[in-house]
Amino acid sequence: GLRSMSTATRSSLKIGLLPADGIGHEVIPAARDAILALGSTIPKPEFISLNAGFEYFTKKGVALPEESIDVLKNECDCALFGAVSSPSKKVVGYSSPIVALRKILDLYANIRPVVSVAPTPGEKPSVDLVVVRENTECLYVKQEEITPGPNGREARATRLITERASRRIGTMAFDIALNRPRKLLTIIHKSNVLSITDGLFRETVRAVPANAEPAGKYDEVTIAEQLVDSAVYKLFRDPQEFDVMVAPNLYGDILSDAAAALVGSLGLIPSINTGDSFVMGEPVHGSAPDIAGKGIANPLASIRSAALMLRQLGYSDGANRIDKAVDEVIREGRVLTPDLGGSSKTQEVTDEVLKRI
Amino acid sequence: GLRSMSTATRSSLKIGLLPADGIGHEVIPAARDAILALGSTIPKPEFISLNAGFEYFTKKGVALPEESIDVLKNECDCALFGAVSSPSKKVVGYSSPIVALRKILDLYANIRPVVSVAPTPGEKPSVDLVVVRENTECLYVKQEEITPGPNGREARATRLITERASRRIGTMAFDIALNRPRKLLTIIHKSNVLSITDGLFRETVRAVPANAEPAGKYDEVTIAEQLVDSAVYKLFRDPQEFDVMVAPNLYGDILSDAAAALVGSLGLIPSINTGDSFVMGEPVHGSAPDIAGKGIANPLASIRSAALMLRQLGYSDGANRIDKAVDEVIREGRVLTPDLGGSSKTQEVTDEVLKRI
Ligand SMILES: CC(C)[C@H](C(=O)O)[C@@H](O)C(=O)O
Ligand SMILES: CC(C)[C@H](C(=O)O)[C@@H](O)C(=O)O
Repeated sequence: GLRSMSTATRSSLKIGLLPADGIGHEVIPAARDAILALGSTIPKPEFISLNAGFEYFTKKGVALPEESIDVLKNECDCALFGAVSSPSKKVVGYSSPIVALRKILDLYANIRPVVSVAPTPGEKPSVDLVVVRENTECLYVKQEEITPGPNGREARATRLITERASRRIGTMAFDIALNRPRKLLTIIHKSNVLSITDGLFRETVRAVPANAEPAGKYDEVTIAEQLVDSAVYKLFRDPQEFDVMVAPNLYGDILSDAAAALVGSLGLIPSINTGDSFVMGEPVHGSAPDIAGKGIANPLASIRSAALMLRQLGYSDGANRIDKAVDEVIREGRVLTPDLGGSSKTQEVTDEVLKRI
Repeated sequence: GLRSMSTATRSSLKIGLLPADGIGHEVIPAARDAILALGSTIPKPEFISLNAGFEYFTKKGVALPEESIDVLKNECDCALFGAVSSPSKKVVGYSSPIVALRKILDLYANIRPVVSVAPTPGEKPSVDLVVVRENTECLYVKQEEITPGPNGREARATRLITERASRRIGTMAFDIALNRPRKLLTIIHKSNVLSITDGLFRETVRAVPANAEPAGKYDEVTIAEQLVDSAVYKLFRDPQEFDVMVAPNLYGDILSDAAAALVGSLGLIPSINTGDSFVMGEPVHGSAPDIAGKGIANPLASIRSAALMLRQLGYSDGANRIDKAVDEVIREGRVLTPDLGGSSKTQEVTDEVLKRI
């Protein structure tokens, strides 16, 4: 139900692959194979492997080489990103490549559907929500400084909330809500403390329907709101209360991890980073250094991210085939990775999915 | 197990009562009655009722009258705060009195134990953790501004993290960890994005043992860390992973609500706001406008906050008596408010506790 990016007819689909760190190297190939398995359902995929990440930084001194950016901008229709490792101490010159990519490619929305798999097809899932996370500002502008003070050092970070970014993420969230059965949009904020920044976010999102074209476009959408702390609490106690949640960047980050906990494993949750002209799929999980290289990472979040990416590009048939295959594998429960209580390998789970596509 | 504030002998205990808004008016009297029920276990309590809150603001134009501050500072040994309502829109001149009080009284630590009640006395609780939340800075410094920009308004907030505040909250957290059986301290941050501010927090807390007196004081404490998004995920999936968590202000706010969801109801979770010379008990729940005035608010969080406050003041016998009574009432499960699946009134639950003190 996401609005699709473009209906342009492509003869081929150029997809940048950035596994980045840790299990990214194990799960991104699975997503690639799922796309390949679609055959002629989608334009012929062409994959371009690109460097990024902390591992690359330790070798080459740069976390996001210019070449990767250039190829993404000039040659790719879309991309799949794996996960990044965080250095365990401050490392001079290192800065997260995923945060940078979101900004450079103006991927202003991070869309994270969290849906439990229903025991039987057609049955209502117990959790079915989408976190729509603003993806370019808030504390992620990374404007930080540190100064000596009379009682030791003092560090300050800027949290930026603009009307423009709030309006476009708000519009995206209303569009998503409008295309879902419940049409309920919950605005997440903390304006009881941040009356100006979160006040602007809340007010701007609320003003979206009044400025919509055609007028009345969002009349069917119900608007609710929730302070971020209560939202996390409610999410655990009563996830059915939520349909679409729209949130500033950091709250969205936290909420999507919280929601992931509800459906069994972070290893299941896909996302796309999307703007008006580019989309990048990304599993919500991290690089999982503890299990990296063991071949037991859950590939389903990445495979689903590929589906989400295809849907955003207008290829819903392909997306549906992948999603259906993934749901079946989960429902059967025979071939699952350890994070879901199984004992299968990444490759075995991937093969199960591929068989069903 | 918290370190106690002072062992000075008092002939009486002056306690400020600030019910503030909504169900605050229903639960603070319950906490007062629990303290009264202790009789001579503690110095004779004297209660002083004080104004604060959004309801007071709508009547008098001020959310925290000077008089309340003066009395707290000059006459009270401690205080109990209820909850505040958040205006549903920006209200000029209104600012949260609880955030202000924490700062004015320099209550730099917000301590929030989240413990499930074991089915039988002595059995191990399934959740047993303490959130130690920095209480004076981070985004709560409320330095915000809004300016017109080429694409609409732009709002900025400052997030302040100082070495001084990080060191004192870190020290408090190490002391708390040292007094608990597991002695595990998890530092919560997001330094993969906020490398300077959260980097300073992490580094300063980690440096506490090296500067401790006597040297080696914290040798038995195990230090762990967790990114805030993963921490919320882990909290839901595997709460046993945590013992003491120390966090900057906003993360602590969110984490304590998340933890509350694990043990059944926000209506159970107490906290104290404490500095080196004053302590203020405060239930973690809000003013709950939806149920205010109905007499069905859960008084247990406030009653437990009174116990926590007494413990911090050095009156552990009194604190233990209250806690034991509350645990019994929960364990019996006969007289509980609707948030816990019961159908009893605030007063009935309070009476059950009082009988057992
Ligand atoms: C790796 C990190 C910078 C990132 C974020 O905070 O956005 C991650 O947690 C995510 O959710 O995509
Ligand atoms: C009411 C609000 C300002 C407060 C906070 O954010 O600190 C509350 O959520 C809390 O946890 O005490």
